[in-house]
Amino acid sequence: MPKVNVAVAGLGRIGKVHAEITFTRLENARLVAVMDVVSELANSVAEKYKVKAYTDYDALLKDPEVDAVFITTPTNLHKEMIVKAAEAGKHVFTEKPITVTSSEAIEAIKAAEKADVKLMVGYMRRFDDAYATAKKKIVEGSIGNPLVFINIARDPGAPPGWAQDPRLSGGIFLDMLSHDFDMARYLMGKEVKEVYVKGDALLYNEIKQKGDLDVVTINFEFEGGGYGLIHGSRKSVFGYDLRTEIMGTDGTIYVGSQTDPNLAVGSKDGLIYRGVQWFWSRFYDAYVLEDAAFINSILRDEKPPITGVDGLRVVEIAEACWRSVKEQRPISVRRTL
Amino acid sequence: MPKVNVAVAGLGRIGKVHAEITFTRLENARLVAVMDVVSELANSVAEKYKVKAYTDYDALLKDPEVDAVFITTPTNLHKEMIVKAAEAGKHVFTEKPITVTSSEAIEAIKAAEKADVKLMVGYMRRFDDAYATAKKKIVEGSIGNPLVFINIARDPGAPPGWAQDPRLSGGIFLDMLSHDFDMARYLMGKEVKEVYVKGDALLYNEIKQKGDLDVVTINFEFEGGGYGLIHGSRKSVFGYDLRTEIMGTDGTIYVGSQTDPNLAVGSKDGLIYRGVQWFWSRFYDAYVLEDAAFINSILRDEKPPITGVDGLRVVEIAEACWRSVKEQRPISVRRTL
Amino acid sequence: MPKVNVAVAGLGRIGKVHAEITFTRLENARLVAVMDVVSELANSVAEKYKVKAYTDYDALLKDPEVDAVFITTPTNLHKEMIVKAAEAGKHVFTEKPITVTSSEAIEAIKAAEKADVKLMVGYMRRFDDAYATAKKKIVEGSIGNPLVFINIARDPGAPPGWAQDPRLSGGIFLDMLSHDFDMARYLMGKEVKEVYVKGDALLYNEIKQKGDLDVVTINFEFEGGGYGLIHGSRKSVFGYDLRTEIMGTDGTIYVGSQTDPNLAVGSKDGLIYRGVQWFWSRFYDAYVLEDAAFINSILRDEKPPITGVDGLRVVEIAEACWRSVKEQRPISVRRTL
Amino acid sequence: MPKVNVAVAGLGRIGKVHAEITFTRLENARLVAVMDVVSELANSVAEKYKVKAYTDYDALLKDPEVDAVFITTPTNLHKEMIVKAAEAGKHVFTEKPITVTSSEAIEAIKAAEKADVKLMVGYMRRFDDAYATAKKKIVEGSIGNPLVFINIARDPGAPPGWAQDPRLSGGIFLDMLSHDFDMARYLMGKEVKEVYVKGDALLYNEIKQKGDLDVVTINFEFEGGGYGLIHGSRKSVFGYDLRTEIMGTDGTIYVGSQTDPNLAVGSKDGLIYRGVQWFWSRFYDAYVLEDAAFINSILRDEKPPITGVDGLRVVEIAEACWRSVKEQRPISVRRTL
Repeated sequence: MPKVNVAVAGLGRIGKVHAEITFTRLENARLVAVMDVVSELANSVAEKYKVKAYTDYDALLKDPEVDAVFITTPTNLHKEMIVKAAEAGKHVFTEKPITVTSSEAIEAIKAAEKADVKLMVGYMRRFDDAYATAKKKIVEGSIGNPLVFINIARDPGAPPGWAQDPRLSGGIFLDMLSHDFDMARYLMGKEVKEVYVKGDALLYNEIKQKGDLDVVTINFEFEGGGYGLIHGSRKSVFGYDLRTEIMGTDGTIYVGSQTDPNLAVGSKDGLIYRGVQWFWSRFYDAYVLEDAAFINSILRDEKPPITGVDGLRVVEIAEACWRSVKEQRPISVRRTL
Repeated sequence: MPKVNVAVAGLGRIGKVHAEITFTRLENARLVAVMDVVSELANSVAEKYKVKAYTDYDALLKDPEVDAVFITTPTNLHKEMIVKAAEAGKHVFTEKPITVTSSEAIEAIKAAEKADVKLMVGYMRRFDDAYATAKKKIVEGSIGNPLVFINIARDPGAPPGWAQDPRLSGGIFLDMLSHDFDMARYLMGKEVKEVYVKGDALLYNEIKQKGDLDVVTINFEFEGGGYGLIHGSRKSVFGYDLRTEIMGTDGTIYVGSQTDPNLAVGSKDGLIYRGVQWFWSRFYDAYVLEDAAFINSILRDEKPPITGVDGLRVVEIAEACWRSVKEQRPISVRRTL
Repeated sequence: MPKVNVAVAGLGRIGKVHAEITFTRLENARLVAVMDVVSELANSVAEKYKVKAYTDYDALLKDPEVDAVFITTPTNLHKEMIVKAAEAGKHVFTEKPITVTSSEAIEAIKAAEKADVKLMVGYMRRFDDAYATAKKKIVEGSIGNPLVFINIARDPGAPPGWAQDPRLSGGIFLDMLSHDFDMARYLMGKEVKEVYVKGDALLYNEIKQKGDLDVVTINFEFEGGGYGLIHGSRKSVFGYDLRTEIMGTDGTIYVGSQTDPNLAVGSKDGLIYRGVQWFWSRFYDAYVLEDAAFINSILRDEKPPITGVDGLRVVEIAEACWRSVKEQRPISVRRTL
Repeated sequence: MPKVNVAVAGLGRIGKVHAEITFTRLENARLVAVMDVVSELANSVAEKYKVKAYTDYDALLKDPEVDAVFITTPTNLHKEMIVKAAEAGKHVFTEKPITVTSSEAIEAIKAAEKADVKLMVGYMRRFDDAYATAKKKIVEGSIGNPLVFINIARDPGAPPGWAQDPRLSGGIFLDMLSHDFDMARYLMGKEVKEVYVKGDALLYNEIKQKGDLDVVTINFEFEGGGYGLIHGSRKSVFGYDLRTEIMGTDGTIYVGSQTDPNLAVGSKDGLIYRGVQWFWSRFYDAYVLEDAAFINSILRDEKPPITGVDGLRVVEIAEACWRSVKEQRPISVRRTL
């Protein structure tokens, strides 16, 4: 069986997941190297999987055994790392979002095109069984013509570490809600045309000080018709609260739930359910399928299911959102490529 | 339009409901009289509806304007009241259970037969939209051949007033679980053949002292095949908890829910749902349809949908349950008519 | 016990409900007359309750026995009927919305003020147990400071009869979504400051031809901070779909559900739940409490819980929504009184 | 860090899971060998993890590097494999149930005691977050004194391969419902005293021919008070249907759900939910915690959380169930050790 030799660059939580998946779950991938600027981290992961450890990205890219790189570092590093990998002839999987700005995204996309390497962006929700089935049902016509997309996304808390700095992460519209914009495009099969955003930092002082927002509501329109509402919040005291719905002329599809149905305690106060506890358990399979899709696109020499342009479109929407918040008026989404 | 003139005898909560329904909701019924031994009660209800008030049941039965009587008194009074009504040529609707003992039930049934009057027993759950639709789905074959009936029934608290005395009410198997046995027979379309009961008074001292039970589990078998489990409890701290399921060869139907889905409060402790709050709201429509069915059976001269024999069958099951608890062995249900 | 003598003017479905409730459920109200321009309708309802029948509204208002009038006619008739009732010295309960335009609402409010009669508007959801408990929880501080109001409202179908004509009904923002705007004001305890609306008639040709909308999304802002999203649709193929949520700094309250939890059929296709079936059953108790609140405000000479100004505020929001749709920009809500 | 060197014997699906977990997730375990009688299987797994491959169990046990063995073979092989491992001085984790008969279980337990090695039985549900939290809540007193245990367990289909032969698997009471009996003992904190079972093979001819059952209902009693109901079925057309509830004097805990809340398709037929899809995803974390608990019990030289005697108790209950079905009477559970 032909196999793709992969390396993972950036060994935070999500990098470790991609290392584990490519090692244990994919028959046609072979983990050959890991890289992190923290050498202890690189060494410990390398030892576990008996693979090479790097602390220098350029050195990793010179390794002829590596066919493809998973980039799992802070967003502001993505552009340069993608360009370098492409120039080194490596296929690239980058965690979402592709880059902080649309101009960076275009640079990354062009580098990959020029080098003729695959470039895939990790919007793993597309591979989640519930979202994937929703897409399938919509394509099959189960709800008729899709008219309205609604997404409510509340994280349990403020983002950790570097993701709190909007200059590194792109802020709430990119770091958090780009998943939801990707779903809007994917499930409706249409581009976002115009956004009108209300929002502020109402929950956390540190977010306000860094210039990011933590509560937003967005009303938007799709090209070719159809409307959308997105609400994002950086707080949900009982756990993740992520729900999506798509109303069509003949039905409505609902994805997600705020409650873990598996435990209820009935007491005098009522029945107490827990919030969703199983984020990683739930989405682990999505990461597996996502990584498999990337590997398959390389082996079959096909376009990856989530392209650099898909990544760019979401950055463009986020940029329009920022303008709408600042100028307090509806903003048309500008296509830059 | 031909109309049936009705009287309600016994003006507790359930009697008032039948008075209101026959007055306001049924086009082909006309409330003409009400009766209660408490004269203030009889007078106030009569005044509201501008109908006759009686405090004496025999006097009510002599009223030639009355075509049919709703008997909504304590269970131990049912037998004599049914017999008298039949002898007076009045059609009879009796609240459940029909009587405290099977021999009383037979007497009541025979009196109605002899007088050629309708006799209907008020198992209103059969008219609840969810249970009625479940029956329809089963008959249509949605779940294939029904094999297992499971019923979990928890009341919010101990029964009030006279219903706490098993000599007046028949105890937990008749006063509470006869609804569930009626559903077992109705949904499975089969008679109950044998029961094995475990139970005790584990929740309330007063129930123990009066010789009734408050927690029971029952394993039973249907004639012609199929099994059943029933659990009853006189306590559920957050509200009614009534759920029924019927598993067939090709599917399972679930009726009821322990949670009111209409309100959830998400706090640090989780999402708190209320128990079922809308007992009367939910079942009000069932009472309306039940009363309509009784009136229609009179006008069309048809067998009522829940006959005296249906009422008797449930009393026989309850008697077998009492024997099983006392003798601690499986008991065959004896058919007495 | 002092009682308020009431009349119901307009005997469509909702008028009949108010007649039934004031007759059967309210101890301190006495139904004395009903009125409809269709004489058969007036007579049949009057006969049932043994009260007076009118076909002429002016004649009804001259009846000295009548203390208060329930106005349950098409919206475009409300203003004149409220003014006339006030001038006749009758207290007024009007079904929602108060009027089609804000200037009409002001006229109605001023007439009631001048005559010193009570004027209450029928936003019965405030009396629904789930919504009322949500309000109570918010006031108690269960969710901290409320920040975001979200409401998804999908009717099962296009409105019937006169309500299809936006000139008579005020269109989707008044006829349907005024309930939701009333809830936004009520639950958040703040006025709506600005709205931005997207919408079209995407479902029904007849709605398009009459100049109304059937699918809308609204992003709005509250005075003093906080944001809102409302989505309305005139179609939901499986039943009512009404859900509201209020996110605060320390929790989120969810009201409503798209599913009737009481019946599920498990087959090879999955578990099939029904949509919400019990609209009338669910909200009947809310109508009872609403009517009781109106009667009590008269007997206690207090301000009704939903005033004419409450009714006006919602009309002002609806007018801003229409402007936003037409001018495709955010519109400030103008206070006219 | 001290580490336990482990081997996995039997590389079916569940064996592979234990190999993956001990390799990737446990810091203090080291996978050193795998064994299967099918050499291709042993070799491919060994190659993946770069560990030793065995096809002969006795040879594996002679490997001095191996500290502990995971036995993941058909049940009828467990007894001999446990005894041999103990005699070789290896700690033993055996998949559930411990053995087919109670006399075999006693032999296995005694061998482990004699050799002074750990023996743990894999009832992983105890480590599932929902079940574990339920246990915690019960111990904390959230529901007062637990009185009733109810468990409904429906598998999506007949068991595969060897598990269809009750001589190899112990039949429905051991192969399937031993999980539920383990939970009964665990959550109630009491032993099962007496069982009364109804059951037959009503779903599958092949199960009937092999002498196993596919539909059972069980009514049982706990020592020291309290009752239980268990229903098991080898068919649930829409997916796993596993629900447990424990009613106490002051509350009720519900574990499990028949519905995946994450996707609903609303069409004219209602809202269609899927059954539970994520068996492995859901329980994967439970397997991880279970394996960690075994490893920790070795390193800390403590009694494993699920002992050989725990395994034996469930076998004794299953034996009583078989007798009850055959003799059609309540059977006391006999303690054999």
